[in-house]
Amino acid sequence: MLTFQDAIFALQKFWASEGCLIWEPYYLQLGAGTMNPATFLRVLGPEPWRVAYVEPSVRPDDARYGENPNRMGLHYQYQVILKPEPGDPQELYLRSLEAIGINLAKHDIRFVEDNWEQPALGAWGLGWEVWLDGLEITQFTYFQQAGGQTLDPVSVELTYGLERILMAIQGVRHFGEIQWDERRTYGDVNLAAEEQHSRYYFEVADVDLLREMFNGFEAEANRSLEAGLTLPAYDSLLKCSHTFNVLDTRGAVGVTERAGYFGRMRGIARRVAESYLQEREEAGHPWLEQPEATKPHTEQESGSSPDQSAPFVLEIGTEELPAQDLTSALVQLEESMARILSDARLEHGAVQVMGTPRRLTALVNELAAGQSASDRIVKGPPWSKVYDADGNPTQAASGFAASLGIEVADLEQQELDGGTYAVAAVREEGGPAWKVLAEKLPGLIAGIQFDKAMRWDLSGTTFSRPIRWLLAVHGDRVVPFEYGGMVSGGSTRPLRGSQTGELPISTASDYLKTLEANEILPDVATRRLEISRQIETAAGEVSGSIAPDELLLGEVANLVEAPRALLGSYDEAFLDLPRDVLTGVMKKHQRYFPVEADGKLLPNFIVVANGQRESNDEVVHGNEQVIRARFADAKYFVARDLERPLESYVQQLDRLTFQTDLGSMLDKTHRLEALTASLAGQFELSEGDGQSAVRASQLCKADLATLMVVDMTSLQGSMGRYYASESGESESVSEAIYEHYLPRFAGDELPQTAAGTALALADRLDTLMGLFSIGEQPTGTRDPFGLRRGAVGLVQILVDRQLNLDLRIALGWAWDGYERGGEPDALENCLEFIIRRQQQLMLDQGRPYDVVAAVLASQGANPLGAQIAVRGLEKQVERADWLTLLQAYSRCGRITRDFDETFEFAEERIEEDSTRALYQSLIKAEASPRTPGSVDDFIAAFEPMIPAIDRFFEDVMVMVDEQALRENRLGACCNGWSILRSMSPTSPNWRDISPTSLLRGGGYQLCKEQGTSH
Amino acid sequence: MLTFQDAIFALQKFWASEGCLIWEPYYLQLGAGTMNPATFLRVLGPEPWRVAYVEPSVRPDDARYGENPNRMGLHYQYQVILKPEPGDPQELYLRSLEAIGINLAKHDIRFVEDNWEQPALGAWGLGWEVWLDGLEITQFTYFQQAGGQTLDPVSVELTYGLERILMAIQGVRHFGEIQWDERRTYGDVNLAAEEQHSRYYFEVADVDLLREMFNGFEAEANRSLEAGLTLPAYDSLLKCSHTFNVLDTRGAVGVTERAGYFGRMRGIARRVAESYLQEREEAGHPWLEQPEATKPHTEQESGSSPDQSAPFVLEIGTEELPAQDLTSALVQLEESMARILSDARLEHGAVQVMGTPRRLTALVNELAAGQSASDRIVKGPPWSKVYDADGNPTQAASGFAASLGIEVADLEQQELDGGTYAVAAVREEGGPAWKVLAEKLPGLIAGIQFDKAMRWDLSGTTFSRPIRWLLAVHGDRVVPFEYGGMVSGGSTRPLRGSQTGELPISTASDYLKTLEANEILPDVATRRLEISRQIETAAGEVSGSIAPDELLLGEVANLVEAPRALLGSYDEAFLDLPRDVLTGVMKKHQRYFPVEADGKLLPNFIVVANGQRESNDEVVHGNEQVIRARFADAKYFVARDLERPLESYVQQLDRLTFQTDLGSMLDKTHRLEALTASLAGQFELSEGDGQSAVRASQLCKADLATLMVVDMTSLQGSMGRYYASESGESESVSEAIYEHYLPRFAGDELPQTAAGTALALADRLDTLMGLFSIGEQPTGTRDPFGLRRGAVGLVQILVDRQLNLDLRIALGWAWDGYERGGEPDALENCLEFIIRRQQQLMLDQGRPYDVVAAVLASQGANPLGAQIAVRGLEKQVERADWLTLLQAYSRCGRITRDFDETFEFAEERIEEDSTRALYQSLIKAEASPRTPGSVDDFIAAFEPMIPAIDRFFEDVMVMVDEQALRENRLGACCNGWSILRSMSPTSPNWRDISPTSLLRGGGYQLCKEQGTSH
Repeated sequence: MLTFQDAIFALQKFWASEGCLIWEPYYLQLGAGTMNPATFLRVLGPEPWRVAYVEPSVRPDDARYGENPNRMGLHYQYQVILKPEPGDPQELYLRSLEAIGINLAKHDIRFVEDNWEQPALGAWGLGWEVWLDGLEITQFTYFQQAGGQTLDPVSVELTYGLERILMAIQGVRHFGEIQWDERRTYGDVNLAAEEQHSRYYFEVADVDLLREMFNGFEAEANRSLEAGLTLPAYDSLLKCSHTFNVLDTRGAVGVTERAGYFGRMRGIARRVAESYLQEREEAGHPWLEQPEATKPHTEQESGSSPDQSAPFVLEIGTEELPAQDLTSALVQLEESMARILSDARLEHGAVQVMGTPRRLTALVNELAAGQSASDRIVKGPPWSKVYDADGNPTQAASGFAASLGIEVADLEQQELDGGTYAVAAVREEGGPAWKVLAEKLPGLIAGIQFDKAMRWDLSGTTFSRPIRWLLAVHGDRVVPFEYGGMVSGGSTRPLRGSQTGELPISTASDYLKTLEANEILPDVATRRLEISRQIETAAGEVSGSIAPDELLLGEVANLVEAPRALLGSYDEAFLDLPRDVLTGVMKKHQRYFPVEADGKLLPNFIVVANGQRESNDEVVHGNEQVIRARFADAKYFVARDLERPLESYVQQLDRLTFQTDLGSMLDKTHRLEALTASLAGQFELSEGDGQSAVRASQLCKADLATLMVVDMTSLQGSMGRYYASESGESESVSEAIYEHYLPRFAGDELPQTAAGTALALADRLDTLMGLFSIGEQPTGTRDPFGLRRGAVGLVQILVDRQLNLDLRIALGWAWDGYERGGEPDALENCLEFIIRRQQQLMLDQGRPYDVVAAVLASQGANPLGAQIAVRGLEKQVERADWLTLLQAYSRCGRITRDFDETFEFAEERIEEDSTRALYQSLIKAEASPRTPGSVDDFIAAFEPMIPAIDRFFEDVMVMVDEQALRENRLGACCNGWSILRSMSPTSPNWRDISPTSLLRGGGYQLCKEQGTSH
Repeated sequence: MLTFQDAIFALQKFWASEGCLIWEPYYLQLGAGTMNPATFLRVLGPEPWRVAYVEPSVRPDDARYGENPNRMGLHYQYQVILKPEPGDPQELYLRSLEAIGINLAKHDIRFVEDNWEQPALGAWGLGWEVWLDGLEITQFTYFQQAGGQTLDPVSVELTYGLERILMAIQGVRHFGEIQWDERRTYGDVNLAAEEQHSRYYFEVADVDLLREMFNGFEAEANRSLEAGLTLPAYDSLLKCSHTFNVLDTRGAVGVTERAGYFGRMRGIARRVAESYLQEREEAGHPWLEQPEATKPHTEQESGSSPDQSAPFVLEIGTEELPAQDLTSALVQLEESMARILSDARLEHGAVQVMGTPRRLTALVNELAAGQSASDRIVKGPPWSKVYDADGNPTQAASGFAASLGIEVADLEQQELDGGTYAVAAVREEGGPAWKVLAEKLPGLIAGIQFDKAMRWDLSGTTFSRPIRWLLAVHGDRVVPFEYGGMVSGGSTRPLRGSQTGELPISTASDYLKTLEANEILPDVATRRLEISRQIETAAGEVSGSIAPDELLLGEVANLVEAPRALLGSYDEAFLDLPRDVLTGVMKKHQRYFPVEADGKLLPNFIVVANGQRESNDEVVHGNEQVIRARFADAKYFVARDLERPLESYVQQLDRLTFQTDLGSMLDKTHRLEALTASLAGQFELSEGDGQSAVRASQLCKADLATLMVVDMTSLQGSMGRYYASESGESESVSEAIYEHYLPRFAGDELPQTAAGTALALADRLDTLMGLFSIGEQPTGTRDPFGLRRGAVGLVQILVDRQLNLDLRIALGWAWDGYERGGEPDALENCLEFIIRRQQQLMLDQGRPYDVVAAVLASQGANPLGAQIAVRGLEKQVERADWLTLLQAYSRCGRITRDFDETFEFAEERIEEDSTRALYQSLIKAEASPRTPGSVDDFIAAFEPMIPAIDRFFEDVMVMVDEQALRENRLGACCNGWSILRSMSPTSPNWRDISPTSLLRGGGYQLCKEQGTSH
């Protein structure tokens, strides 16, 4: 049996043989091997570094009294740093697994997106969790920043979770049962410590003392930095960090404190990093080696160029892309490929893009062998300068003609740019396709953008994950190009874990066949269908079925290249857990498909593995172990949570930060109670609904303090509903607690109950107003508090539930909740922000831009009203006589537009009939019955005025010389306009609704273009 | 090349194969692997445990800015625990050296006594430093106690110093040059840290904060213990320990304060240990295995018993004995062997005892084959009960006779024990010698006592170091016995490191030949002579000689079995160092003989290696490396120290605590200045001496802040003298600085200069008064501040230098120095304490107890006076008429003893002549010239009074009925007694000097018996 210590030996030996220096654990309590200076500092700066070591990692917060099979206050990490990245870190890593006896052919190894961040150290990176049959065994990260410093070169960090790996290898169910050596178990040597340190961290550690200690260590870090002592400062920082962790575990870190603590630590981390960089620079970077000379590009066996149309394939081979990045990359690839082919005048057939986590493929049918020819006019000297006075060609003309290889006599005369010039018609013959593509493809790849991109090697190239190979073959010729230090070639790679080497693609038409022969389904849609089919078949084995979940299906399809759905089972006893918990764990943690029959869960799940193997027993068994442990965790949490009623968790919310400057979740709860009551009054809720809403507002955040939700935040609301119900709250209250988070994402369900609706609105109003009040509105792509989603949800709920609400008033209530006093500018900003969200929503629905803008400018504060008005106005503008109407309306405004003054109007001083008629029609219109905000009513009132308006402008010359007369006429206009405006359900802007935009049949396109400036 | 990490691998592999669990370094800053709970806690209790691990050990005090080749603030220990000891741990250890490529045949490996103690943890053990060619590479300890708990079983602890071993293996001169792996050196990865942490520890760390932190960690340890959390408490203790170490490195812990910190830590360590023991006991000692059944004693090939006298050899084979223990064991062995042979009536020739570090041998010439016959008288029943009334033998007599195998008629009559008994003369024939010896030898071995003995195995046997074999051969017969689980045999062992196996001693007469054939010189004196010869020869190679040093010679002779003196050299540049430093390092640290010529040191040394090897080059080279590093250390310290004048270190004394409640060493310096000035005045020193004394008082502690003294405390005073002289202070001042520490131990030299004397007294007075003033007087065997030695020194100096000093006054000055005000009770306690020391001193000198007591009771405050008075009184009590004199004297006191009142005496009311005569003789005596304190003068004055006294008591009845008369007579007595007492140089008690005690010829024995109650 491979013991715990054997595994460490084996890893030490393996990584030493790969040139890693074998380092020792650090002499301080660290939360992770990353914090060992051998990582945190050595990844900084340009010098190469390879290191491997064990790190006993102390995480007070994970302490579980030794009771939890997988979580410990101290666990052993095996940490590896490869700097710079070696080009094949995944393969190296997989070989290290073989070194500890894991037979890759028998297991499903997966690289699952995981982006790592350590805010206290100002550090982050992109990478994966590595899964062994569903069990996370390693964190694999391309380190991008540390101490706030951008890392160049990038380091690869591997962090093995030794306990998990050994539990899997030894087949034990609790970390305590791992054999450490032949004689003693892990539990023998560590279990008492787990139990005692848990008690210390959760129950005993002296909070006041810890605070003092933190301050002391911080002071010591600063003293050290001032003395230029990087490493002692870093030690003190590490002590700060551990002290903070204990404080946090004691539940003693108050709301406003947490961000403060992080900021203080991050500040030190940054200075430490800067100081270290400076030290190494002053030392002349002694480890810096001459970068290896760029390897000469070996001439690719390029094959012969096609002499007629032939398929072209481009495959960008990557390390595992995150599911969303794969989707987004394919959209861009399709668009870009089409564009470059068109720009390059390359005739082609269908362009098909396909992708798996490890490859982005564009397959172009019938791509021409070369570019089409193009004719173009080249502008030469002014025609007057072509011949001199003697009629001989000037030097300018001769030179121009010569440069094009033609005679001066061939030049023609053409009007251009407001002058007459000599021009020449030039035909450009196209080059061969491979040559054009070789030029264009680098730009195509560089043009693919990701929300989070990373660097990995010395080329500084960025992509979602590292690119590892480039396949580009036209017909049977390699299209030779270079990108990010890589050279394109004529081969692809098989499934990960396959024993086959690189797969030659000697001709583009072989591409799909070759992949298929290697099990790979390159097309996303095909995989999706295949998975659907397979999971249904698998579910059928237990007479079950799969509830549709397009999101999960889409994600899973993006996680595998060769899907193999496998049925696993778990203990029926777990079915006692709330369904949301079970499905949440299965879907969210493990990407399993839950299996059900007759609407009830079966004790089964389906995992979609990647690739076929001789036997799937180990894979299924491994996944079953994982889900068992996960469910055991959840069961423990739920049982512990249910020991007390939900209400009892409310007080603990004082330890949960809502936002640093906005107090705790308990504070928020108190505000929500008041705000919900106001909204309940506003919406005239029944007494029962009102009481439910208020009760729900008191409890709605309580589940955040429960173990289950702390463990799996996505269960918030859902657990709240369950715990409320189990605590004897009414169904209405329980449901409102669940509903108040709705909608959680675009397309999510909306609250249906009155109480849930009121509370959902209150929650959003409070969050929006609060964050705006401290200037935390979203900027650019930054929206850490999800305010855009919140605002959209707010609007959606009001519209969906047909609720009229004046947001200005409602935000005023929210503002009052913060007890700041005074009149907030923030309120207007916030309102404007919400209106812009509704604008976007309506534009996305295809409403014309001008219409939307016109309505929102006056009615934005009431989303439901605005929605109705937009629909009304939209209908009106479709009227055949809309322009007449519009012109009549806008004439009134236009005449007064240039005046800043207002003019007095005296009815008795009216001299002309037409003016009087206009005035009277106005009075009549004003008196006509109208629903506030209704466009139709307004138009109906206004329409009769049109003749009078036309007559007025025909008959009356407003701008007469006589001042009194002129001013009275202007006064009539102003006054009339003013009344009209007050009647209008839209802004004055609708007079500007442009015929052009209307003629274009809707404002959608327009708004898209203008949108950015709004 | 074996890299640093390779060596660790090799050790891990070796020890894992020996059943050690491979553990990881602890997550806290530890000074040594011992402090890892895997050692400190696991050695407690009965459960077996084998573990091995690397421990990066943080010792701030050893930090040297990376400049010193051998010392670092962080070094890597490799730690092994074998519990219980495996029976051959030394051999196992040596094999582990081979596992890392050390060829034992080429090196001088030595086990040099080193008794390890960690006072902060209440832990100690006996064992060795293991030297590789003079370089300490491992600490090898039989752990006896931890946390104040006696360990049973005993654990063997091996602590490898990895840097030293690797420097030797790689042949590099600075730890920074060690190749850590193929690419990086140790310096690459650790040198910057060394430099920075050194600066932090020595210059930057915030002392006040550290003190607070210590208190905080201590409080946390106590909280944890109260909550029953052993391991968290232990973590806090470890943090205390590191914090203390940093404080100490900052020079912020005074000698006296140190004991306080240690006590606090030891207290926690003890409670932690108790708590751990309890935990394991409550858990039922799950690791406890059934002890292996005692292996049956294989029958020894015992040979045939000699049938006539033959040599007998007993060899107790041990692991390396400390030099002093070897000496003491041989004395005991000689005495015991002679005694048991005599007791056993075994005729024998010369008994020769011999010994080396690994064997204690008694060789008996011509030991008889069997015991001599013995005749003895056996006492039977009373003679009257031998025959009954009928003259027939009684049953008692018959039985008695039968038990002896004789007839009743053979019984004889003899006066015995005050009665008449029947006795029988019985001849006992002797048994064979081997049988008698087999019985007696275990007792002989058990009877050998050591100052520090240890247990090692489960038998519980104690000895100086473990016994590993027993050789006992008489003629050619093994004398079979068993001791401590071992069975005697007929073989010995060769030199350590020899490839030869056990050496059979088939006949005792072969013993010496066999050893000689194996290079071993078993006789101490022979070795000593051989070493003398060899070192002189070796010194001769450089025309040098060796200054006699019997102590060193004796020690070295006890360290080797086969001496090989080897000449080494060092860089002449080191000769600039003070001689005390060089010889101190050579002799004290390395047991080298310094080589000199013409009274000056040569750059050479002689090391006495153990055993011959093909070439000594590696051994010499190794030793040269060691001394070079040692001297480099010293040179660095001295050079750094000399950068500033001695005076400039004075201010740094403010960071050295004298004692927590008594301020810093700087405070002490200030007090010493004033006190020295007062004493100089008191002793009427010359102006020059007085100025020297005061100047010296200002500088006397300054060297404590120098690096050299911080490193090697035993150089205090000596370095002060040197630095003072180098700083331009006068010789008198420099000498006084040196002298003020004298005497440092019993038998040490005393100060000779006036200035040195005054300062030495001042220092002791200040320390004594200070510690008494805060109640820190010694109790029981506890005397952490060495006050007993201080008081003895004080008395010795005063007596030796013939200085009269009233300690009450001098302590008053000392008291004033502390500026506490008020009248201290402490002063009387302190004075009493000093007097008790002088009492002990005088009793040790053989002065009669009563005399000493009598004198000290009145003259104790002036030690010189008391000394003189005791001598005087002692002489007087030897007078023939002493009792008369004593009686006369004490009569006066005795009569008044029972009255509490005083009685008035009026001379004019005297009625009797005899009373008047007494009174007049008293007046006369009072008026006679006397030196204060002189016993002789007093006796001379008193003696003439005797007739008057006798007459008074004969003639006058004091206790007459008439009150006035009685009271006047009593008044006369009281008054007379009062005057006598005021004249007496001793206390009233001398009237109680008992005739009995005097008759016993001196109070020595008496005082020894009574001493404990005083």
